[in-house]
Formats: sequence, structure tokens, C-alpha cells
Amino acid sequence: MRYTIFGESHGPATGVTLTGVPAGLTLDLAAIDRELARRATGKNNLSTARREADQVEFLSGVFEGKTTGTPLTLIIRNTDQRSKDYSKIKHLPRPGHADYPAYLRYEGCNDYRGGGHFSGRLTAPLVAAGAIAKQLLSQEGIFTGAHIASIAGIEDERLNPVVNERDRLEAVAEKEFPTLSSERGEEMQKAILEARSEGDSVGGAIECMVCGLPEGVGAPDLDLNVEGIFARHLFAVPAVKGVEFGAGFSLAYMRGSQANDSIYMAGNVVKTRTNHAGGVNGGITNGMPVVFTVVMRPTPSIAKEQDTIDLDTWQNAKLTVEGRHDPCIVHRAVPVIEAAAALAVCELLEV
Amino acid sequence: MRYTIFGESHGPATGVTLTGVPAGLTLDLAAIDRELARRATGKNNLSTARREADQVEFLSGVFEGKTTGTPLTLIIRNTDQRSKDYSKIKHLPRPGHADYPAYLRYEGCNDYRGGGHFSGRLTAPLVAAGAIAKQLLSQEGIFTGAHIASIAGIEDERLNPVVNERDRLEAVAEKEFPTLSSERGEEMQKAILEARSEGDSVGGAIECMVCGLPEGVGAPDLDLNVEGIFARHLFAVPAVKGVEFGAGFSLAYMRGSQANDSIYMAGNVVKTRTNHAGGVNGGITNGMPVVFTVVMRPTPSIAKEQDTIDLDTWQNAKLTVEGRHDPCIVHRAVPVIEAAAALAVCELLEV
Amino acid sequence: MRYTIFGESHGPATGVTLTGVPAGLTLDLAAIDRELARRATGKNNLSTARREADQVEFLSGVFEGKTTGTPLTLIIRNTDQRSKDYSKIKHLPRPGHADYPAYLRYEGCNDYRGGGHFSGRLTAPLVAAGAIAKQLLSQEGIFTGAHIASIAGIEDERLNPVVNERDRLEAVAEKEFPTLSSERGEEMQKAILEARSEGDSVGGAIECMVCGLPEGVGAPDLDLNVEGIFARHLFAVPAVKGVEFGAGFSLAYMRGSQANDSIYMAGNVVKTRTNHAGGVNGGITNGMPVVFTVVMRPTPSIAKEQDTIDLDTWQNAKLTVEGRHDPCIVHRAVPVIEAAAALAVCELLEV
Amino acid sequence: MRYTIFGESHGPATGVTLTGVPAGLTLDLAAIDRELARRATGKNNLSTARREADQVEFLSGVFEGKTTGTPLTLIIRNTDQRSKDYSKIKHLPRPGHADYPAYLRYEGCNDYRGGGHFSGRLTAPLVAAGAIAKQLLSQEGIFTGAHIASIAGIEDERLNPVVNERDRLEAVAEKEFPTLSSERGEEMQKAILEARSEGDSVGGAIECMVCGLPEGVGAPDLDLNVEGIFARHLFAVPAVKGVEFGAGFSLAYMRGSQANDSIYMAGNVVKTRTNHAGGVNGGITNGMPVVFTVVMRPTPSIAKEQDTIDLDTWQNAKLTVEGRHDPCIVHRAVPVIEAAAALAVCELLEV
Repeated sequence: MRYTIFGESHGPATGVTLTGVPAGLTLDLAAIDRELARRATGKNNLSTARREADQVEFLSGVFEGKTTGTPLTLIIRNTDQRSKDYSKIKHLPRPGHADYPAYLRYEGCNDYRGGGHFSGRLTAPLVAAGAIAKQLLSQEGIFTGAHIASIAGIEDERLNPVVNERDRLEAVAEKEFPTLSSERGEEMQKAILEARSEGDSVGGAIECMVCGLPEGVGAPDLDLNVEGIFARHLFAVPAVKGVEFGAGFSLAYMRGSQANDSIYMAGNVVKTRTNHAGGVNGGITNGMPVVFTVVMRPTPSIAKEQDTIDLDTWQNAKLTVEGRHDPCIVHRAVPVIEAAAALAVCELLEV
Repeated sequence: MRYTIFGESHGPATGVTLTGVPAGLTLDLAAIDRELARRATGKNNLSTARREADQVEFLSGVFEGKTTGTPLTLIIRNTDQRSKDYSKIKHLPRPGHADYPAYLRYEGCNDYRGGGHFSGRLTAPLVAAGAIAKQLLSQEGIFTGAHIASIAGIEDERLNPVVNERDRLEAVAEKEFPTLSSERGEEMQKAILEARSEGDSVGGAIECMVCGLPEGVGAPDLDLNVEGIFARHLFAVPAVKGVEFGAGFSLAYMRGSQANDSIYMAGNVVKTRTNHAGGVNGGITNGMPVVFTVVMRPTPSIAKEQDTIDLDTWQNAKLTVEGRHDPCIVHRAVPVIEAAAALAVCELLEV
Repeated sequence: MRYTIFGESHGPATGVTLTGVPAGLTLDLAAIDRELARRATGKNNLSTARREADQVEFLSGVFEGKTTGTPLTLIIRNTDQRSKDYSKIKHLPRPGHADYPAYLRYEGCNDYRGGGHFSGRLTAPLVAAGAIAKQLLSQEGIFTGAHIASIAGIEDERLNPVVNERDRLEAVAEKEFPTLSSERGEEMQKAILEARSEGDSVGGAIECMVCGLPEGVGAPDLDLNVEGIFARHLFAVPAVKGVEFGAGFSLAYMRGSQANDSIYMAGNVVKTRTNHAGGVNGGITNGMPVVFTVVMRPTPSIAKEQDTIDLDTWQNAKLTVEGRHDPCIVHRAVPVIEAAAALAVCELLEV
Repeated sequence: MRYTIFGESHGPATGVTLTGVPAGLTLDLAAIDRELARRATGKNNLSTARREADQVEFLSGVFEGKTTGTPLTLIIRNTDQRSKDYSKIKHLPRPGHADYPAYLRYEGCNDYRGGGHFSGRLTAPLVAAGAIAKQLLSQEGIFTGAHIASIAGIEDERLNPVVNERDRLEAVAEKEFPTLSSERGEEMQKAILEARSEGDSVGGAIECMVCGLPEGVGAPDLDLNVEGIFARHLFAVPAVKGVEFGAGFSLAYMRGSQANDSIYMAGNVVKTRTNHAGGVNGGITNGMPVVFTVVMRPTPSIAKEQDTIDLDTWQNAKLTVEGRHDPCIVHRAVPVIEAAAALAVCELLEV
């Protein structure tokens, strides 16, 4: 199952074309809507004021409620666009955004309104595609769940990496603010509002677990290894700037005797006592949960005045970004990371 | 230019098949050998006692000293193998290694001797392929260089991410122990020997910079984005468990106003004052150096006794790994990471 | 530039998602409509009575009349559907159609109405994608044109394979019935009507020429060779059952001395005196026009009673196909073959 | 299972790197040698006098006689090279060969000796790879077999396309000259010798059948359809200029009522009474044998003087090809086409 995301923030629609969807999956449309609601804007003042219905329309690949097995395209019409907000910054690339490299890459022809194809809006069809992937994986007993690992330096509890944490993660998904520890979630929300009140934004990290993935999947080789496949899907999510598996960057500080996950028989199941490897050795799953963390950079759209250049005059310039923006996208990105992970698993299972 | 690495640690040879190599590149064989020497074993007692000549033999794709443009296969014969060392651990998967998942993935048919296809030996043809990639990129003014960022918690100086650090990195490549700060390098070596004397191993991180990459390369989409392409190549290097670009995981602690890289005119060149983005926004290069860090887990082969299982009896077991092993592979991995980066750039430039 | 066609004959829409479209192409919408009109139904009684407006709607990848360089999705809504016609044959696979293999492949979940994803309707978005490809190629001086080579055994004149036949082929494209010889075209139309009156259908062949393709494009290797790339795109067109380049199957009857195309200097341009190779040697273009012929099987939907099986009872059964059908699709397929060829060239130029 | 063929006619070796080979296949080395012997030269005076041992050397991916599942590279050393034969034609591209387009494509850097990477020698590793593929497919009950369909206009009997012709094809594979009808084979051999005596060469066609392929494999979409996958592999075989499935180009002359293959219950197996579709409808297998025919152009290396150009002076020139050449390669290509078909099936079964 492969996907192509298309659309622009202020174009007619965003959407996704999925190929390789198995035939005969009864789509749970309510579940797709629930996933979209998790990433939707406007729940509270933590997020942009832009409100989108995120109504999914299936154009192909579904018949009588089931997938047909042929390419599936779904779209989400854009409805609440205010293109005027962006026209005046057409020539003033926003620091931290893709405006300047996109101007070069697309020779000035990209749709600059609201970030165009680079907009966070494009994560809506990704979440919809991920919701379909989750339904497929669910039939195989595979679950992907995530929570905020940290925002603005405030850390949530961590998952227990040697345990199937499905129940706790399903509970997190029900929360308006997806942390394991509600207190920490409160603190994070305060930090977000504080940054917002200062015209600023905050970053964070998301921890994700994939449970139920069969052991012995993947290979060490380029294009086949589990970590590479996940990383490709995750780095395609806007704002992700780092991906680590298991203990990740902490491994730089460990000794081999600490880092090695002892293998043992838990009854007649093979397990490891720790899971610093994040469920993967040599690019292959080892049967433990696959656990990874991604870092999400702070939202680049801030209210403070910033230095940039003017693409008409190629002179230095000042820019104040207006429009509606999120002071933090980490909490909204939780279902997006789950979706990317689910789509990565679908690819992986074919390898 | 795409590559397939093949071979096993104790098989006849390791090698690589490269497709899409442009015709007419005059191969600098001495430069290929220099790169191989950088990763070679046996320089000092920091590394395994196994000594390999790493003699490159070209089987195809080279004619009269130049690349022909048709598929290029090179091999490195394995010479110093002692297979007896490994036979007794055939049924005792080594913790931290791929032995157990490989046993599952390949139904017990993989060559287990010395880790087989998972061995660090396989990075020799990768380095050779990377050396060819570097020669190609050099014609375009593109340079990839790396240094040890940390070993055992001892941190090297960092590169200045807004500056082309080619000169310093070329000087590092000449060193026997590739750090920017020689003192820190000394400390790291002490830490490695200390771990070795305790039958243990240490991990670390490598920082890599790609200079001269054209701006406007890559795209936000899956399979085309710069970070995803680098990550795929990097995660295929054994022991890499995390990849971050620019400020990476530190971005979780920053505000947008700090993280955003201000854009300005440096004469008539567009630059950013900081480079927290690592030279990439929205999956596209922005003209600043591409900077990333990878974490390398501590070598899993340690002399200490470890817990594992017996694949014959499916009972718990004890294992003491014998044979010749590295107490640290970070310093030897520096040219490997450069090679993977250079091969990633070759792929990227076709996108 | 790669494409994914999606949609079903009686679903909401058919469409195509194009990736890798260069930025900045000013789309000539009228030209896209003209290509669609060439394949459209209902011009005369040679074709099915189903009438479709074939109104192209761009969902993404176009901004201010130009391509943005990001994924481009266009759709054509289905309007004139009469699903009742098909329901009664749900369990009676039509001989010559994909009904039976599709039933197996998609486990009975494919949209069977009007052939679903297998319908000739799916060639509408292919033609639209091809029209965009043609506009791109036109900027490089590359032209793809085709004509009916034969229908029902009546042969059109053939192109002169050593000459750029653009002018003649553009004139053919203006004709309602795309043959070089209008008389032969008349005869073919009579043969089609005759078959129709007998409740039958006829097949034929299409000859296509690509002019202006640079020399030295392609490679002998799998996935890179010119003939393989064209063939992949052409066999994806419904009803194509054979593809031959240059003299094609006639080469079986030639001697080397006849088949070899003598090379000579035509002024300071290298040409060949004949073009039995169809412009390709060893998988690489040689600078002569690329010429190929495809065979199109007769339309499988015929009015005569046919033998089939009943998928409910797994017994032999009789079937009479009702609904609106073409007694011949060769003439309508001419722009489809051109489109597939243009899309193949776009892929080829990236190789 | 994917493959990359590498090597040059007068380089150190030809070979193939296979990825995706399932683990645990016990390789029948004698069977690989038998396949290589079928395509080998020097059996009789029908073929070039060049004699090669075609000794297969496995470099990776095989351990204790079984495939490991990791990339498998095998090579065949070149032994009987006479490079002097070719040096004088370095600047005189041979008509019908890839010399001229290769000169352009590879900027004059390709190995021109004996056709380099374009040589028929490269079909030796293809046959070896195909032999491995056949062993894999044999475990699934899938068989690929071929015979000469015609040489120099002399036609062999045809296979019965509605019947599993494995037995007859296995008998053909035992013959020195692989025709169904021995008399026709005799006539063909006479025609070859006649052409040879006149310093000329002859072309022909090969018919191939794949039996035992599961029904419902493939899809109508680009890259997934059965005919496209076969065609890609077949056009990568040197000298193939056309591919047709089932009745192929004859379908241009048929009516739908003739061309449609009636479906019926043969006991409790679904079959068709004819097999004009060659076992494929809409890009999906229908359970009948997959049958296709390829045309092989006459060998371009002939003894007669030919017109060409001089790449040094860019003037017209005369060329007489010396060296050792085949007056016909159709009979030697039979196992090559089978190999390409077997490798196509391996790819197809993953789709």
C-alpha cells in the first residue's frame, strides 16, 4: 500500500491516492472521522482559528462500503480559506518555513497561499489514509499509538517499551490533549498559552509504539530495513526534524552491557528484558514493540517581527506574519505520526 | 546512482553493484583505498585484531580507468576469516545483534558466521561505493565530511553550521582518530580502552556536513524529501539508531523565535544567520550546509557473559562472545557515514 | 513524471494523480479538451451511445494557470451512468473482459458496473494526463502522433519511418476518423458498421511515431531500456495485446543484411537509410523517429449470445451482453496510445 | 526478486545481483549449468566459435548450499576473449548494433570490445538468474518453457494454448535444436547455414508458455499488469523487437465473436475453450497458460560489407565486421527467453 498526498492549503481540495489497498476491507467511516477530529483545529485556543469540516469524499476504490482493491482516492474539500491574509507576504519568505526553498525548487510557481502544498492542512489526507491503514492493520492485530513525549521541555511519562501499551494509548487517544499524565498535559498547555501570549511558539516530541508487528519483518538492506522505512514516512511529516528508535540518542552515553537487550523465554515467547533497540535489530523486527520518538520543531509562524529578505528586490526586509496560526502543533501531530507509522507498517509488511 | 551491497563476513567476498553511475568519471583508485583505510581495522588496539587488505577488484563498469556508465560491480575478497570462532554460538543469538531476528527472517538459513550479511565488514563496499560517489560529487563542488560528535559521553567541538567547514573536515579525515579537538579525541580513546579493559564497549555520535549542495533540491513528498532520503541511507548503516537534522532533538526545547533561522543577504547570496534547520526546510535544501547527527549504539559484542536463549532447546542460556571485536566502532564509522551521505546526495540530485 | 489512474466507470469520478510534473508549465486547457474530444464517444454511430462531457477538474498542482510542480490531481466526474444495465450480469463474467480474473483478484469486491476500474472510461484521465505530457514535450520539440494502422484487416498507408511525420500526423488528428488515407478510413468504417449490424466487433492496430526524441536516451538494462518503458505504458492501455518496434515481427523473416539500418551522414546529421529498428538499438534511442505498432483486440462486448459460467452456481451459463458498446475502439484509442507514449517519453527523459 | 545484470564482453566477468531471493532454497547447481549449456556457444557450426566455460561462481547469498535470503551475486569469469578483433572498429559503429547510440549515451566511454555491456554474453548471467528463478517457481508448480516458433520464415508447430504443455517443452529443452517438430528444426538449420555461407544472418521468433501460474495475479494498473511486467523483462533481452500475448497481432484481423475466449466449467475448474488472450485479461491472469511470442531480429553482425560512418571524421565509411559471430541467435535465445519469463513471474508473484 503506497500513497501520494496532493493538494494545496488554498486550492480546491487536499487528498490522497492509495494504491495496493487490499480488496474487501469494510471501511469504518466513523473511525476515519474520529482520526480527523483528533488532528482538527478549533477545539480550543491552543490552535489556529481556522475551522475545517474535514469532510472525506471517496472518489474511487470503494464500492458498497468496501475497498475494491483498485486505486483509492479520497479528497477533503477546502472550505474556510482566507487567501487575502497571505498575498502580502508573497515576496517575503517566512523564516523556518519552506517558502524560500520552495520558491527556488518550483521557480516561483508554487501556490504560496497558506504554505500551499507545505501546509499542515496536507496532514488531513495523511490522517485519513492512516485511518484506513489502521483498519487494515487492526485485522492483523497490529496497533499504532502515540502520545506527546514533551512540549516546551515539559516531559510526559514514557511508555514501558517492553509491554504492549495498547490500552493506555487508546485511552490517550480519547483525551483532548494526548498525554499519559494529565498533570503534565496541563503544564504543557499552560506553556503553550504562555508562548502564544508572547507571540511565540513551542516545540516538542512524540513517542510512538507499534504493537503486534510480526517478528522477522524487514531486512538490513537499503529500502528494506524497518528503521529506514519508518524514517522515510516520518520525515515526510512537516516539522519532524529527528527520528530515533528505542533508547535512540541516549545510546551514545551507554555501554554495550547496558544497551544490549538480554533475550529470554517468557513462557514460550521470546522477549528481551529491556528494549533499547526499539524492537529492531539489523533492520529486522525482533518481536518486541517497535518504539520510536520524533522531534517536532516549534511552529515557525510566530507573531514577532522577523528578519527576512524581499524576493523582488533581493534586499533585507522585516516580516510580521499575520493570519491564524498554531502556537504549537505537537498535540495535533500525535494522530499524524500514528498515521505515518501505520502507513509505514503497511509498506513494511509487503517487503 | 543506486547501490546494492552484497556479501557475508565469512563468504568469498563482499561487494556492491552500482547502477546509474555517469559515464566518463576517471576513478581515483588511490582515493578509494584511502577511504577504505580510514575504516580499516588494525591500526591500533582500539579495534578488532582482524586484518583485511580491503583490496578492491572491479568486475564491471570500468574501462581504461573510467566509468563506462553501465552497472559497476566491485568486490573485496574476504581473506582473514576464522570461522571456527563463531560455530559454537550458532544457536545462541547474541544480545544487541541481529542474530535472533535474522534467524526468523531467513528461516535459519542466513550465514551466521561473524554476523554474515549483518557484519560491519559490509561497510567496506559501502565505503568504496561512497568513495566513487564522492569523486562524482566533487566535480559538482559538493563535499561530505564528518567527525566524531561524542564517544562515551565525551563531546567533541561541534561544526559551525552556517559555515562551509570543508577545510576542517578534510583535516579531520587525515587524523587517525577523527575528532575536531585532539584533546577530546585523546579522552575518548582512553574511555574506549577503559571499556575494553572491562570487557565492555561504548557508543557515540557522528556529526556530518554536506557542503555545496545546490539550493532548491528535494521536495516535501514521500520519497523525495531530503531528510527522508538521507535517513534511509543512514539507517541502513549498522548500529545507527537515530538521525537528526540541524538542532534536531534540541528543537523540542526551543521556541519558534529561537528555532527560526533568520534569512538575510550576505552580499548577493541568501543565507540564514543560524542553521537550526540543518539546511533543509519542507524537505528542500535552502542553500545552507546540510548538517545532521547520527547516534551509533555501543558495539553489541562484549566480553561479559550475557543472557540469551538457545535456539535448539528454546531454553534460557548464557553466552560469552569470543572472537575479535571492536570496543567502539564510532571512529571507524566516520567514513561510513560520509559514504552513506554521499550516496544519498547522488540519489537526491536525480530527484 | 509518474501517474496513477484511479476511478471506476460508475463511481463518482475517474482521475489521475501526476507526480514529478515540472513547475511553471502554462496549461493549455483547450488542448486538453481537444485530446479528450478525440477519444470521446457519441460522434457517430461507430461508438457507444454513452455521452460524457469529460469535464476536467483540477484539484491540485495548478495555480494561476500554471503547474506548481507539486502533485497534480485532475478528475472527470462521471455523469451519464446507467448502472441498471450491468446488475444482472454481476455473476456472469463476460468472455474477453476482465470480469472473471478481477473477481478472483479482488475477491468479488471490485465494482463490476460497466467494467469498473477496467472500463474504457479510465482512458479519459489517461488522455488528459497525456495531454499535459504532450505540452511538456512540445517545449522540447518532441511530438507523439498516431494513426490507425488497420481495422478488420483493412490497412492504412504506413508512415515513412525515416522521416519526421509530424505534419501528416497533425492532419490525421484533425480528422474524425484518424487514418492517413481517407479512402481506407471509409472502408474501415463500413467494416465497423457491418460488424455492428451483425452484433459483432472488430480489432485493429495503431502505428505511433515519436519525433524529436533526443538520441542517446535509455539504456540496455531492465527498467531503463526504451522499448521496455514504452511497452509498460502501452500494455497498461486496455485491449493492447502486442507491441512491436520498427519492423517488429517482420524481422523474423528478414536477413541481417536487410534488417540492419545503414548509418550515414545526412549533411552533418547522423541518420539511417532504413528504420527497421524503430529508432532504438540496445534499448537506447539512435536519433531516428521512434516508431512502434500496437495491436488492439476486438471489443469483447458483443451482442451475440456467448458461453460463460455463473459465479453463484459455478455452472455453465449463457450470456447476452446488453448496454451500450463500441463495435470497435481502435479509432478512439489513437489519442490514448499517443497519451501513453507521451507519458512513457516523460519517464524516459528522467532515466 | 529483482535483478541487476552487470559486466562487459571483454571485462573480467559478467554477473548478476539478485535481491529478494527467499531464504532456504537448496540450489541445484547442475540445473543451473544445464541451463547455461543450453545457451552456450560452440556446440556446432551454427554458432560463434567463441567458447566459454560459463563457470558460475557464487560470491554471496548462498551458505551450505542454500540461499540465505540476503543479496545473491554470482559471476561468470570471461576467459576466451580476443580483444584485438574489435579495436579497429572502435570508430565504425556497426549497423544494427547499439554501437552508435551507446557512443552517445555513454559519451564514448563504454567498453566497445565485443559490444561490451550490450554483448550476448550478458545473457549468460541472465540465464543463471533465471535458473534460480525456475527452481523457486518449481516449488510452486510453475513452469516456463519455450521453443523456436520460426526461423527464416520456417515455422515450427505451435503449442496448444489451452493445455499445459510442460511435457512437450521439457522434451524440447533436451534437444540440441529446440523445436517441437524435428523436421522443421532441420529445415531451419539448413536455412541458418545457408545464410552463413552467404555472410548473412537470419531472424525468428520464440513462443513461450508459463504453466501453473495462479489465477487472479496482476492488476490493470501501470507497473502491476501481467503483460507489462513480462514485456519489461523481455525487451531487456538483446534482439527482442516485439512481444505479443495469445493471438497477439492476429487479433487485428479477428472479430470479437472469434477473439473472445468462451468460459466454461471443466469439471470444477474454470477454463476457456480458446486462449486468444494468452491467459491474461485486463492485466490479470485468468488461470489458463500464459502464452506469448517474441520476435528476435537477425544477428546484426554479418560478414558482408556495410555502410556506416566514422566517428572520428564524421564521414561516411565502409565496414566489414570480423571476429566470431552467430548467423542466428534464435535457438540460443530460447533458454534466455525462458529465464526472462521466470524472472518476470518472480516479480509478478510479489505484486
